[in-house]
Amino acid sequence: MREPIFEIVAIGNELLIGKTLDTNSHWLAKQINSLGGVLRQITTVRDRRYEIGKAVRSALSRRPDFLLTLGGLGPTHDDITLSSISRLLKRRLVLNREALDFLRRRYLTRFGPSVKLTPPRLKMAKFPEGAFPLPNPVGTAPAPCLVLHGTTMISLPGVPKEMRAIFRDSVVSMVQRFGGQRRFYDHSLLLRGIPESSLSPKIDEVMHKYRGVYIKSHPRGIEKDGAARIELHFRIGGTSPEKSMGELRNAVAMMKKKLRGRARVRDAGRF
Amino acid sequence: MREPIFEIVAIGNELLIGKTLDTNSHWLAKQINSLGGVLRQITTVRDRRYEIGKAVRSALSRRPDFLLTLGGLGPTHDDITLSSISRLLKRRLVLNREALDFLRRRYLTRFGPSVKLTPPRLKMAKFPEGAFPLPNPVGTAPAPCLVLHGTTMISLPGVPKEMRAIFRDSVVSMVQRFGGQRRFYDHSLLLRGIPESSLSPKIDEVMHKYRGVYIKSHPRGIEKDGAARIELHFRIGGTSPEKSMGELRNAVAMMKKKLRGRARVRDAGRF
Repeated sequence: MREPIFEIVAIGNELLIGKTLDTNSHWLAKQINSLGGVLRQITTVRDRRYEIGKAVRSALSRRPDFLLTLGGLGPTHDDITLSSISRLLKRRLVLNREALDFLRRRYLTRFGPSVKLTPPRLKMAKFPEGAFPLPNPVGTAPAPCLVLHGTTMISLPGVPKEMRAIFRDSVVSMVQRFGGQRRFYDHSLLLRGIPESSLSPKIDEVMHKYRGVYIKSHPRGIEKDGAARIELHFRIGGTSPEKSMGELRNAVAMMKKKLRGRARVRDAGRF
Repeated sequence: MREPIFEIVAIGNELLIGKTLDTNSHWLAKQINSLGGVLRQITTVRDRRYEIGKAVRSALSRRPDFLLTLGGLGPTHDDITLSSISRLLKRRLVLNREALDFLRRRYLTRFGPSVKLTPPRLKMAKFPEGAFPLPNPVGTAPAPCLVLHGTTMISLPGVPKEMRAIFRDSVVSMVQRFGGQRRFYDHSLLLRGIPESSLSPKIDEVMHKYRGVYIKSHPRGIEKDGAARIELHFRIGGTSPEKSMGELRNAVAMMKKKLRGRARVRDAGRF
């Protein structure tokens, strides 16, 4: 059983003009990881039909198990995620009965019986043909889900609270049904006084001995006395917690031994 | 004279496992914007030669004026940005004389005359053939710059301090020489008590009247009394500050008038 592969297409001018920091993708990356999945790529594009279409097409061509689009589902002129997907896939946008019921209940409870389902509101229940709605426990519009040649494509809203709630309520269980039993285990060491370039051969040796362990060094600045500060991040993925954690521990111990007298070392635990 | 178009390829497993929030791309987006440039796409990929190569090739095929790669320039096994680019472009990695001089001076001042230029250190002076180095005012390794059929490709380090210093010292002036005279002007309104779906037709009307102004609504949660909180972001780009700011002011005024009695409105200034 292999781990599920994810891609994200994040949509919105605000992400590309430096207005909004994309904490949504970061949050999703964490969740996907803790579910044993692999996030392979994030593509961030503007609110342009052509660019959204190209990014989604290109992601679909790489055949991820899950493709999450982020943003552009609201009622305004620049919420064009679904119309872009509909044009790309040559599937008409049609009023989804289930989504419409959901939307109507939401507006009714929020604004009372006099509320009208105006065109901008109805827009949020128009899905590409064949899509079905995932309930939105905190917002007005449900999220469309479409299964295409082995890729499950889910269009999540950009509002963080709604995105997270839909992910937790619907996506998590879909991923678990997918059956990824693999989990990841991490450990970080904080090193002082050794430059990254001297560390490099030691990393190679430890990774050569423990082939399941991936080690990455992250420079974390320079101390006042000129000594380099580096985070060494160890990671292993596997289906047996005991075996994985054992190998991780051994790799960390081997590295510590190699660093004795060469650097000050501190355990920094999980990230 | 048109504005320079940018793309970013951000490289690093840490960005895709939820370990690191990509504040580098966000910072660059802001800088590019304030220089009058347009950031069209960010592609975030893992430390895999094949995936980096594909992302860079695909970005180059869209012919941006500037392509910035981020990360993967260090001395360790997983710093493979340059070898991926070299393979993609079929240009050999060669020791760059100027980069080597830079590196040697840095190690000399930092570690004294006994320091050896080991293979992991020399690696940082190996550039794809034809690249030239941009000086790194705070780190050891300079950044390679390569001009390809109208795209200037610059490989920036992932360490934020170094990335920012190289951008400020070298990239800013390259962008200014490019001659983008266009600047962007922004204004935000904070609205309470009107749902986004009721706002949508008003946005359309104001954008129809002021065609240079782009208006985007961002839901910002719900008040305790159930009223929606929305940020309305107005933006215009142009070469004449007076003309652009005038049009922006008029669009904001028209929107305020349309909202009178329908929502509580507060100026929130620039983002």
